[in-house]
Amino acid sequence: MFFYLLDILGTMAFAISGVLTALNKKMDPFGVFVIAFVTAVGGGTLRDVLIGRTPVGWMQDLNYVYVITAGFVLAIIFRKKLDKLRTSLFFFDTIGLGVFTLIGLEKGMDVNLHPVICIALGTMTACFGGVTRDILCNQIPVVFRREIYATICILGGGVFFLLKALDVSNGLLYILTSGVIIIVRLMAVMFKWSLPSLGKN
Amino acid sequence: MFFYLLDILGTMAFAISGVLTALNKKMDPFGVFVIAFVTAVGGGTLRDVLIGRTPVGWMQDLNYVYVITAGFVLAIIFRKKLDKLRTSLFFFDTIGLGVFTLIGLEKGMDVNLHPVICIALGTMTACFGGVTRDILCNQIPVVFRREIYATICILGGGVFFLLKALDVSNGLLYILTSGVIIIVRLMAVMFKWSLPSLGKN
Amino acid sequence: MFFYLLDILGTMAFAISGVLTALNKKMDPFGVFVIAFVTAVGGGTLRDVLIGRTPVGWMQDLNYVYVITAGFVLAIIFRKKLDKLRTSLFFFDTIGLGVFTLIGLEKGMDVNLHPVICIALGTMTACFGGVTRDILCNQIPVVFRREIYATICILGGGVFFLLKALDVSNGLLYILTSGVIIIVRLMAVMFKWSLPSLGKN
Repeated sequence: MFFYLLDILGTMAFAISGVLTALNKKMDPFGVFVIAFVTAVGGGTLRDVLIGRTPVGWMQDLNYVYVITAGFVLAIIFRKKLDKLRTSLFFFDTIGLGVFTLIGLEKGMDVNLHPVICIALGTMTACFGGVTRDILCNQIPVVFRREIYATICILGGGVFFLLKALDVSNGLLYILTSGVIIIVRLMAVMFKWSLPSLGKN
Repeated sequence: MFFYLLDILGTMAFAISGVLTALNKKMDPFGVFVIAFVTAVGGGTLRDVLIGRTPVGWMQDLNYVYVITAGFVLAIIFRKKLDKLRTSLFFFDTIGLGVFTLIGLEKGMDVNLHPVICIALGTMTACFGGVTRDILCNQIPVVFRREIYATICILGGGVFFLLKALDVSNGLLYILTSGVIIIVRLMAVMFKWSLPSLGKN
Repeated sequence: MFFYLLDILGTMAFAISGVLTALNKKMDPFGVFVIAFVTAVGGGTLRDVLIGRTPVGWMQDLNYVYVITAGFVLAIIFRKKLDKLRTSLFFFDTIGLGVFTLIGLEKGMDVNLHPVICIALGTMTACFGGVTRDILCNQIPVVFRREIYATICILGGGVFFLLKALDVSNGLLYILTSGVIIIVRLMAVMFKWSLPSLGKN
């Protein structure tokens, strides 16, 4: 239940980040809504399609549609004030990162995939909504160029399977994995960690 | 039967619109054909993939392949004269909008999805071929920026479920829904209706 | 077994071509890896999703992940020397073209699709990894603009079904089809064959 609440919080944060990107591209309300939607559920949708879990998740739980719609409306109304909420938004977005990774790991294990593939699915769930958003906005995905965003999901996935091998109980496993992701992400932004660009220099 | 014919007409109109976009990007014949193809069946393909209806539609009815190929060949041959056919093309495209929305609504109901999701599937069927075309042509999807194209599909979906709740017979339901979509679309273009851009102004 | 080895060689060549494209876009290591990955398995992944063969191929055989990772690491280390290996890389890439087309044809027949659709699936398997790579790198897919790359896959598919109709044995069928694709591709590049652009001139 508490976990579901975090999922919902993260979904809203992702939707709002979608609205912000779309507003910079001068889209009409339909365009902005679609971008908000794919940012929030795009990663999970790709994951579900690739593992054959259809109809995909958001079609079976309308709460996602409602939360995204609410995030969309709020972000439009308060669009001039969102700068002041930057810190809260960043915090919810980070919660989303942790929770979405966990959900992806879980769905992979549900269909008995190898840990390496599960980690890929966790990272995909957390990061590919943003990738789809950027593709639809005609820009190179941010996650391919800056910050160690995706790398943190991969790290979190590694921690998950390490703890699992140590027979850590499920509840603790979830808290520790998402905790690691959230804390490393906060530190990464605080200390401006990043991977080097691999240009042909 | 009559409905299938309209579907085929709409498919050809969508394919021709794909050819026109691709020609502006200096693509070779393969590129132009692929763009024509995804413009025509991309929306339905995405819908089928998301609800798990595979192999997707056009793989099971070769008529789509034939019609798109015919549209492709005709559009290439008459590419210098298509401007004069602009009105007919627009009319067939509008028929496509109505018919594709209906087909999407229907496929959603076939797998018992909620009306809200069915409306999303109808809109997706009608609009995401064009979105995929624009992504492959490296431009921000037109439907996210101009005209109330997608909004009309959503409206049509609403009308569909309203009439259904009133126990309107199936035949009438189909005619009225696609009629509403087609007429509103014609009026929207005639009177230049559009949604405001949501830039950060 | 020998065929599987060629598949692996082709996969590595495709991954390296992905690394080269991504390096030109100043991506970070995660971005470069994702581009390498989708270039190598993107075509087969799209094919699997469209025909409903899920979880998709690379999730069920970790060798693809290992080979792509190896290709990624090698390409990064030797990135300044890859120009000198251009000929070998081109040769492996061409092997990939032949083998991937065959695999796509085969998967289509496995689910009893019409030869026309199987040829589309073969072409998709060989070419859409590169299309996805280009979309993620925010450029119009190369295969839509230059060289008769995809056309050769279609030709190879035609040869396959022609020989099959003549009751050629399976082994010979595979060798001849991939042989035709590889030889025509080599000749196409040697003699600079290309399709004309279809601009509105």
